[in-house]
Amino acid sequence: MRVAIVGATGAVGHELLRVLEGSTLKTDDLLLYASPRSAGTTLPFGGRELTVQATPEGSIDADVILASAGGSISKALAPAWVAGGSVVIDNSSAFRLDPDVPLVVPEVNGAAALRHRGIIANPNCTTAIAAVAVAPLHRAFGVRRMIVSTYQATSGAGQKGIEELLAQTHRVLHDQPAQAEVFAHPIPFNVIPHIDTFGENGYTREEMKVVWETRKILGDDALQISCTAVRIPTLRTHAEAITLELERPATPDEARELLRQAAGVEVRDDPAGKLYPMPLTATGKYDVEVGRIRSSLVFEGGLDLFVAGDQLLKGAALNAVQIAEYLQAQGALRGRVQG
Amino acid sequence: MRVAIVGATGAVGHELLRVLEGSTLKTDDLLLYASPRSAGTTLPFGGRELTVQATPEGSIDADVILASAGGSISKALAPAWVAGGSVVIDNSSAFRLDPDVPLVVPEVNGAAALRHRGIIANPNCTTAIAAVAVAPLHRAFGVRRMIVSTYQATSGAGQKGIEELLAQTHRVLHDQPAQAEVFAHPIPFNVIPHIDTFGENGYTREEMKVVWETRKILGDDALQISCTAVRIPTLRTHAEAITLELERPATPDEARELLRQAAGVEVRDDPAGKLYPMPLTATGKYDVEVGRIRSSLVFEGGLDLFVAGDQLLKGAALNAVQIAEYLQAQGALRGRVQG
Repeated sequence: MRVAIVGATGAVGHELLRVLEGSTLKTDDLLLYASPRSAGTTLPFGGRELTVQATPEGSIDADVILASAGGSISKALAPAWVAGGSVVIDNSSAFRLDPDVPLVVPEVNGAAALRHRGIIANPNCTTAIAAVAVAPLHRAFGVRRMIVSTYQATSGAGQKGIEELLAQTHRVLHDQPAQAEVFAHPIPFNVIPHIDTFGENGYTREEMKVVWETRKILGDDALQISCTAVRIPTLRTHAEAITLELERPATPDEARELLRQAAGVEVRDDPAGKLYPMPLTATGKYDVEVGRIRSSLVFEGGLDLFVAGDQLLKGAALNAVQIAEYLQAQGALRGRVQG
Repeated sequence: MRVAIVGATGAVGHELLRVLEGSTLKTDDLLLYASPRSAGTTLPFGGRELTVQATPEGSIDADVILASAGGSISKALAPAWVAGGSVVIDNSSAFRLDPDVPLVVPEVNGAAALRHRGIIANPNCTTAIAAVAVAPLHRAFGVRRMIVSTYQATSGAGQKGIEELLAQTHRVLHDQPAQAEVFAHPIPFNVIPHIDTFGENGYTREEMKVVWETRKILGDDALQISCTAVRIPTLRTHAEAITLELERPATPDEARELLRQAAGVEVRDDPAGKLYPMPLTATGKYDVEVGRIRSSLVFEGGLDLFVAGDQLLKGAALNAVQIAEYLQAQGALRGRVQG
């Protein structure tokens, strides 16, 4: 199988290489692409050093293209990639709400990936992390309302977001004023309720992505969802406080039992043992940590929970590779190279 | 008027001195008390240096005692202070839910303070900040359900919390592992959904304080409230994402107009101008910043909003002094010294 990564030098690209190294995806050949500025640099993969090339204008000779170079590049080039016969797994928001493009979290709606017409969209990071935790509860108890408040890491803005937090925190600790380039305001020791652009209704695009994409992934347009998306001074891994109104009442024990069986979830819920989801423990982990599971105080039979998931893994690179693995397992990815 | 501060050397004590300097409270004499360990240290007040004394066992010769030395000290000593004729404004949780003790945010339920029997309780910081923003909306539109997710600063654990964040962040930036003494886990670049102890229902005491105290302050036991209380790596000022179901529908414009008239509130709500509540701007401010006001997507006619309030000021020291100012303005504080 010949696999290509477009956007190989970014934070998600870096994680794609690491995840592919441990993946069941039969990667005989790996092509790395990035902006012309990064062409010529080498990246380690499986004990070798691979050279990054400038992303070409047209098709790419690969069975699977994992694209993570931003919406405008995906929008411009994906049609040519598809025309060239590649299956494109796109990490940008360009195609997520396109009715012809499946939006997939394999543990939740993997089968939707089989209906692709060349492009499969990888969800927004916050959405993917929440979906892994909420989908099993939705199937069992029927989520009616879902209220999400996020605690999002600087890694959501890529490597440059992480670097801004570290460099500016260093400045603050040395009594220098923090500056902001990547974020709208200085991020050290601050909280910024502003991720992506604001829409007419006062919600940000990040918040509306959680609304629109969760509905599409769960296949339920009646789901009422609200979100407040907040950037906080953490390096990676998003956390989320989630309140659920359910159609059929659930106890915390029932929810825990269900989530323990769920793929992609680690139930981490022992307050007496100081075990609950945190970026400190969820970073680098494939599973989404779910804990603080308790009966809602505002919705009878509803639930409150807290989740933490590595935004660069389940929220991006891991989910993309898992989509490719799913297609391969279903016999829906035939290596073009091998015929 | 003779005023005493018990717990003068702590983070809240420090703010009490600063707030009293600018207060309309006629402070002719200020007595400072702390643990025997701090006795003899001096603190600046109004251009003078005042000497801290060890807190005595019995009564204190003061008209007003502002107590901020923790629940066990308040519980043990407040009866003697009251017996000695002082009015006690207590910042601990010791008496907040006592039916004989008013729990007061002056902008919201100042008149309740007049019914005191010697002790008036200052609310939990998260509660006080939310109450300032929510009370005007509750009066006008009737809040039915209120869902709160908090972004709480390390100052909530006092000066030692701030110091742990700074020192441990410094360690992480120099590639040393972060340690935890004040908090349950390392706090730098982390999120800890654990403030105060856990109860039987899976909620922390901090979360239940928001439920119980908000109901008492707003005088509405039917109010359904849920809270997820989360410690994040900020120095001071708590932020909160709040979702409100209302009995009578409100538009964001109506809410903004109402809150612009409300005491103790600064409406900071111009997303296009990147204006919204943040610790960076709310720190040191007496008003609670309220913004991101938008129509709820899960409750028809409901509202979502984001608030940021200085935990050491409106969440503690300022509110305590404002209670004393209110009593003085109502003629309910007669200086004992002056007769």
